[in-house]
Amino acid sequence: MAAMGSKDGGGGGGGMAAQAGRLGVVASVAFNLAALAFYLRRRYFGGDDAAAVRKKAEAEVAPSSGKPPVTKDSIINLDHGDPTMYEAFWRGGAGERATIVIPGWQTMSYFSDVGSLCWFLEPGLEREVRRLHRLVGNAVADGYHVLVGTGSTQLFQAALYALSPPGPSAPMNVVSPAPYYSSYPAVTDFLKSGLYRWAGDAKMFDGDTYVELVCSPSNPDGGIREAVLKSGDGVAVHDLAYYWPQYTPITSAAAHDIMLFTVSKCTGHAGTRLGWALVKDRAVAQKMSKFIELNTIGVSKDSQLRAAKILKAITDGYDRAPAAGDDDDDSSRLFHFARRKMVSRWAKLRAAVAASGIFTLPDELPGHCTFANETVSAYPPFAWLRCGKEGVDDLEGYLRERKIISRGGGKFGADGRVVRISMLDTDEAFAIFVDRLAAMN
Amino acid sequence: MAAMGSKDGGGGGGGMAAQAGRLGVVASVAFNLAALAFYLRRRYFGGDDAAAVRKKAEAEVAPSSGKPPVTKDSIINLDHGDPTMYEAFWRGGAGERATIVIPGWQTMSYFSDVGSLCWFLEPGLEREVRRLHRLVGNAVADGYHVLVGTGSTQLFQAALYALSPPGPSAPMNVVSPAPYYSSYPAVTDFLKSGLYRWAGDAKMFDGDTYVELVCSPSNPDGGIREAVLKSGDGVAVHDLAYYWPQYTPITSAAAHDIMLFTVSKCTGHAGTRLGWALVKDRAVAQKMSKFIELNTIGVSKDSQLRAAKILKAITDGYDRAPAAGDDDDDSSRLFHFARRKMVSRWAKLRAAVAASGIFTLPDELPGHCTFANETVSAYPPFAWLRCGKEGVDDLEGYLRERKIISRGGGKFGADGRVVRISMLDTDEAFAIFVDRLAAMN
Repeated sequence: MAAMGSKDGGGGGGGMAAQAGRLGVVASVAFNLAALAFYLRRRYFGGDDAAAVRKKAEAEVAPSSGKPPVTKDSIINLDHGDPTMYEAFWRGGAGERATIVIPGWQTMSYFSDVGSLCWFLEPGLEREVRRLHRLVGNAVADGYHVLVGTGSTQLFQAALYALSPPGPSAPMNVVSPAPYYSSYPAVTDFLKSGLYRWAGDAKMFDGDTYVELVCSPSNPDGGIREAVLKSGDGVAVHDLAYYWPQYTPITSAAAHDIMLFTVSKCTGHAGTRLGWALVKDRAVAQKMSKFIELNTIGVSKDSQLRAAKILKAITDGYDRAPAAGDDDDDSSRLFHFARRKMVSRWAKLRAAVAASGIFTLPDELPGHCTFANETVSAYPPFAWLRCGKEGVDDLEGYLRERKIISRGGGKFGADGRVVRISMLDTDEAFAIFVDRLAAMN
Repeated sequence: MAAMGSKDGGGGGGGMAAQAGRLGVVASVAFNLAALAFYLRRRYFGGDDAAAVRKKAEAEVAPSSGKPPVTKDSIINLDHGDPTMYEAFWRGGAGERATIVIPGWQTMSYFSDVGSLCWFLEPGLEREVRRLHRLVGNAVADGYHVLVGTGSTQLFQAALYALSPPGPSAPMNVVSPAPYYSSYPAVTDFLKSGLYRWAGDAKMFDGDTYVELVCSPSNPDGGIREAVLKSGDGVAVHDLAYYWPQYTPITSAAAHDIMLFTVSKCTGHAGTRLGWALVKDRAVAQKMSKFIELNTIGVSKDSQLRAAKILKAITDGYDRAPAAGDDDDDSSRLFHFARRKMVSRWAKLRAAVAASGIFTLPDELPGHCTFANETVSAYPPFAWLRCGKEGVDDLEGYLRERKIISRGGGKFGADGRVVRISMLDTDEAFAIFVDRLAAMN
């Protein structure tokens, strides 16, 4: 996972809904109400005629976000890693090839492949997942079971379920080295499971029985991680949500026991809620599949069909334009498109940080990328922004006063002088953010 | 929910996957291998050209089930309520109007409506849910919050989460009168939550603090249920998955605190994994929404867009053909189509039971249906089949030997001389089933 997820702590109404909702409402009341109303009016359900489904769809399609557009005075919400940056790519030529048509009678059954270990996995999705990993070279898929989940968040919980002993023993300890993804503690503990429990920073843990969550590249700070705990009966779950060429050099094909991926951060389709896992051990894969059966009786086939079509469009895009040198046309090469965006955004962010003088960022991490076949820097999906200014001990609050919503270090097991900032929002929101940042001193 | 779900008990590899998988494989090895291969070859991902997306889709569409077709000698699996019976309807005229087209750039954000309590609910789905309830009159939606879930199974868990006290108190007791839906115990207990725990048959429970699951019409036996526990601090969750006119007379608009529905059993689209809840109390709705945020960061927008289109096609079908008398054309009236099927199937089943002489079924329950505006009988989605033959104490096993897979009474808190049989499978499977049943004596 390592996606975004909710704010931890607090009971009940906190988190994503409240945070984004409250701010969205405040913002819209202040200056975006007309724009919001316009947006809502453009939404999906309009006409009533049958006939030309294709033409109808063009008139009826929904916007890709329920968020109002930003203006120069807006509150800019970069708390969540909402990957709307990718929309421009999918509105181009590749998007046409990713369009999906689902007739009313299709995929009505619970089952996708009744003889398969993961009986709710569409065979076409599995094929495209394997094909994409072969193209990118970021993970070994041969010899692994492919599982599908409702986002990798569900697969993360499935892994905890599968790796915890079923007996009446004490709960399995779940750890991750700080700074860790802020949702790990909340998602691990929200049901007070007797099977597993959050046990904090892996670097401080000294027991023998644990699951270590290894998020690499790391959410929040973009660093490359390996398991820090290697003794005892521990097992690692590798969250590779960001191990894609637009964010980091692909230095080798990962081959860990359990590897989690998601379309959200690979292709930008967060709303599709579709993740997958590559799992080596058959019994673990079976138990993970069982979790998803009990939790949601499988995974939406509509999402699976769509994700398969999207992954296919990406791989086909590279089959079509295999030349690595032709940097002028990225319209069918997703990773090139996204990398160019990330390079440009990081350059703007570093310039703003330099202009301001009160912030610092992690150093650039270069490496040889086997996919790009050149040495490139990492351009993480989140900026881990630290403030050195005297008196600013709560950087999240400091930025909030300046109408920038970020996620404070405390939620990642770090201090309050650092925040996580999404680098994946719209061009408009990002541009306003860097302008404001540059003016702080 | 009350959908289908897994077999309870047992650790690990049991349940739906294993059950259906093993049998599917055995069956296919025996006589269906060629047909299965043919099916798989017809699957979604074929061509590579761009251009005419609509035409392409027609050539590429997937079958709606990963199950091999049945033959006269097949194992007939009626364990799960897989609602493939509905496929014929959606292949007709109404299906054309339910076709959905999703362009590559659509609904990429996590958010659907950032200012809403349920921020991941597509506004168009909410509109169609309310419209359908107004048409059918089975539930009051005005004044209720609408929540969306990955099937109603997820909403059931969300309700348990929302209704359990967050403090360090003992887990909330979860009860339901036997025979209860077999997934309730398994789904309640699989994570050994400290918030809630399965406490069995509501009729045997004598505590004060509980959640009572009221499934009406009841899965497995089709009976109309009301909460049996009315004292103390108990709260009821009404699982109304089957409160639709094809299964039971709609006698009044339900107006309970929490009501769960699912497209699986209303329209037959189980693979879409889409349920909704009508919730009266705002704080409960917020906590349920929070559960879904933590569990899966919302619900697939592709599923939501599709479900909205399907519900719209149903309601439009009645707007188009409002005459109640014209029973000859059900091609755009889902509930009439499905009811006609259920009437026919129940007649065949009762005839087979009479021919056999060793089985009994629950009595027919007539009532005045406000939707049909006439007195009709109930035709439940499951047959609760009891065997009086000497020596048959394990009816599930007895039928299995005769290549009929059912779910035994023990899993519903009942005895072994009764089983639950799905009435919603394909015409072919159902016909073979009743033929075999009639021959047993």
